Amino acid sequence: MANGFFLKGNICHTPEKDEIEIHENAYLLCEDGRCGGIFPAVPEQYAGLPVLDRGDCLILPGMVDLHIHAPQFAFRGTGMDCELLEWLRLYAFPEEARYADPGYAKRAYTLFAGAMAESATTRAVIFGTVHREATLCLMDCMEQTGIISYVGKVNMDRDAPPELTEPGADASAFDTFGFVNAATRRGYKRTFPILTPRFIPCCSDALLGELSEVRRAYDLPVQSHLSENPDEVELVRRLMPDAAFYGDGYDRYGLFGGAARTIMAHCVWSTEAEVKRMRDRGVFVAHCPASNTNIASGIAPVRKYIAEGLRVGLGSDVAGGQTESMFRAVTDAVQVSKLYWRLVDRTAAPLSFSESFYLATKGGGAFFGKVGSFEAGYEFDALVLDDSGCTGPRPLPVRDRLERAFYQGLDREGLREKYIQGVPCRGLTR
Amino acid sequence: MANGFFLKGNICHTPEKDEIEIHENAYLLCEDGRCGGIFPAVPEQYAGLPVLDRGDCLILPGMVDLHIHAPQFAFRGTGMDCELLEWLRLYAFPEEARYADPGYAKRAYTLFAGAMAESATTRAVIFGTVHREATLCLMDCMEQTGIISYVGKVNMDRDAPPELTEPGADASAFDTFGFVNAATRRGYKRTFPILTPRFIPCCSDALLGELSEVRRAYDLPVQSHLSENPDEVELVRRLMPDAAFYGDGYDRYGLFGGAARTIMAHCVWSTEAEVKRMRDRGVFVAHCPASNTNIASGIAPVRKYIAEGLRVGLGSDVAGGQTESMFRAVTDAVQVSKLYWRLVDRTAAPLSFSESFYLATKGGGAFFGKVGSFEAGYEFDALVLDDSGCTGPRPLPVRDRLERAFYQGLDREGLREKYIQGVPCRGLTR
Repeated sequence: MANGFFLKGNICHTPEKDEIEIHENAYLLCEDGRCGGIFPAVPEQYAGLPVLDRGDCLILPGMVDLHIHAPQFAFRGTGMDCELLEWLRLYAFPEEARYADPGYAKRAYTLFAGAMAESATTRAVIFGTVHREATLCLMDCMEQTGIISYVGKVNMDRDAPPELTEPGADASAFDTFGFVNAATRRGYKRTFPILTPRFIPCCSDALLGELSEVRRAYDLPVQSHLSENPDEVELVRRLMPDAAFYGDGYDRYGLFGGAARTIMAHCVWSTEAEVKRMRDRGVFVAHCPASNTNIASGIAPVRKYIAEGLRVGLGSDVAGGQTESMFRAVTDAVQVSKLYWRLVDRTAAPLSFSESFYLATKGGGAFFGKVGSFEAGYEFDALVLDDSGCTGPRPLPVRDRLERAFYQGLDREGLREKYIQGVPCRGLTR
Repeated sequence: MANGFFLKGNICHTPEKDEIEIHENAYLLCEDGRCGGIFPAVPEQYAGLPVLDRGDCLILPGMVDLHIHAPQFAFRGTGMDCELLEWLRLYAFPEEARYADPGYAKRAYTLFAGAMAESATTRAVIFGTVHREATLCLMDCMEQTGIISYVGKVNMDRDAPPELTEPGADASAFDTFGFVNAATRRGYKRTFPILTPRFIPCCSDALLGELSEVRRAYDLPVQSHLSENPDEVELVRRLMPDAAFYGDGYDRYGLFGGAARTIMAHCVWSTEAEVKRMRDRGVFVAHCPASNTNIASGIAPVRKYIAEGLRVGLGSDVAGGQTESMFRAVTDAVQVSKLYWRLVDRTAAPLSFSESFYLATKGGGAFFGKVGSFEAGYEFDALVLDDSGCTGPRPLPVRDRLERAFYQGLDREGLREKYIQGVPCRGLTR
């Protein structure tokens, strides 16, 4: 009981995806960095703990971003007139090449981490570039934010611009060993390495084989891209004719769930067999609605993934997605699911706001353990949101205020505090 | 030359839809409320005019919102889990019924007009409610903003809740006469009445006939909804079995373009015949991408409308759309056009950013005359946008900065000044 406090306000979370559980003017207990329960009043045995009274503010779990490219933050919201493979060639790869320069990386990642610190994100899984030093610099910057994150040095040994193509599978894998060792030596408390083969078009079979060894040696989790765009899926079919489907190309190297905790971004065009394999292997789907829209990939069939029991979270996917705001990702996921229902499959009911909120909290949070909910025993990641600037002629119920806060993007001006594992973050400047 | 000034900065506009014309560090001349040209330096004959130097800011035409429901602003961003007809019943109609109370209307419309004043919108076409007094109050409020707008008292004489159903076609039309007369007597300088039959499901044939008379008597423009949702289109087919298509139901009463300058919102499910009639009559399509997504209506085939020469502008459609931000409408229009291309019609090329920018400025501006461009002779509606808060590791070209400003929603924190017909608006509090 020594190390605890109460946060008081309008507490909103989703223990179950179908309904937002709301406790008005309630007390959320934090004990040793974990949630200890929600109470209508301070229970007698906790009478000595401090109460941080946040008045009429909304209190909700921190947002979990399962997929974001830190180097692409530099050109977010530009280059929106092309499709995936062209977009990589014209925008993403030329920008990523700049991170060979440590000075540029430092400047860019300081800005990126600053934006993440200001955001509602409390957990993130992040792509760097192929550059070891730059990616370690990214980890240094992220460590300062208080956010708990996984950060990957990207592997690419083919089909990229020369300046981003590592000189062979051995060299790429060896550099990854070096990256993981250096990251470990730096002794970060909240920033961890993750294996990051970019995607099969940029990774030879030899490289995937080597990464399989690295993964086993360090018991690393894995992140990559999967079945994002029809042209990309077709390209993978040609590059790996033996694979039963795109994801099988990762799986044959032990990089697709199972012992390897894995996030696959997008999964817009996954076949039935691929979906089944993801379920069997416990692969996390990072659903990135803004990115799939912006680079014209399509709409992932998230309703089906949920119904079939896949693990699903949301990703901002900067800079395919134009913003790091996970509030935006939540409403984007609802919006594209409505278009999917209307235009593609009338049996796929749109996501409710509650379901999408769940994906951004408890859904993606599961990648980190007991994260994304205020149930007892969950890690205490909480946001304090002041929506008083969003005016109206009559008071709204808390449920509506929460939905409005997301649709109005109040993570920008309304976020007052962010707690991660019970510790307040200092990044917020508002 | 007496009444003029120069605005200096990075000037961006779209005389043609396919390319954003950019003049860096250039001088935009305002003479008697109209644009007098863009110059690399102050021409000798204008040497005496003041130069308002806005440094590195972006200067762009004001945004034109062709479709927004003022009373629905009160519940924007809530109630997003249903489809059109259910949404009207559960959210829109109950809210609109509150505007029978003049005190409520005053409070709500003051907030609405305040938000519009803070926004990038310089021209708007607005729905009120069936209530005459409340709608006049809305006009009072809008007149204060500097925005030039058309405001309509809504007509509904069937199939709505009793408290919103006017007692017969005669009463509805008579009240509209009263509304138009009162609005005229108030002598607004920038706020004008527009005929506003809600949509055919709520308007009897008798009412449309009466409104046809009102329209002719006052030479009023018209706004309404058209072919938004499949269930609604089917309902209209049953209600008006003689009409060749939904829009023919307005056209047979002279409320569909031609002499009646007309805006039809949505047009998601228009048939070929309806599209042809819209073109023949010069009807403006108000494309409302956020609303069509949120209430799961679908995606309007805007590429086709542009190719076939229809007049098209954008609408925020609050509260089907969750925000009055026209920057958001611009990027939403690009985004949904990509999904339309990917999922519905691979011959319908996505809208470029430039095209969508054009729709929000010169496209919709045409409803107001020579509005939405900085070509000589156009009315001087201009925004000064400071994007310096949107940081990056390297400078971006002005074209990319403009695109980024829209995708980042910088109309919220970056809008520094708004000029309408050459006059600075006082509403901005930033």
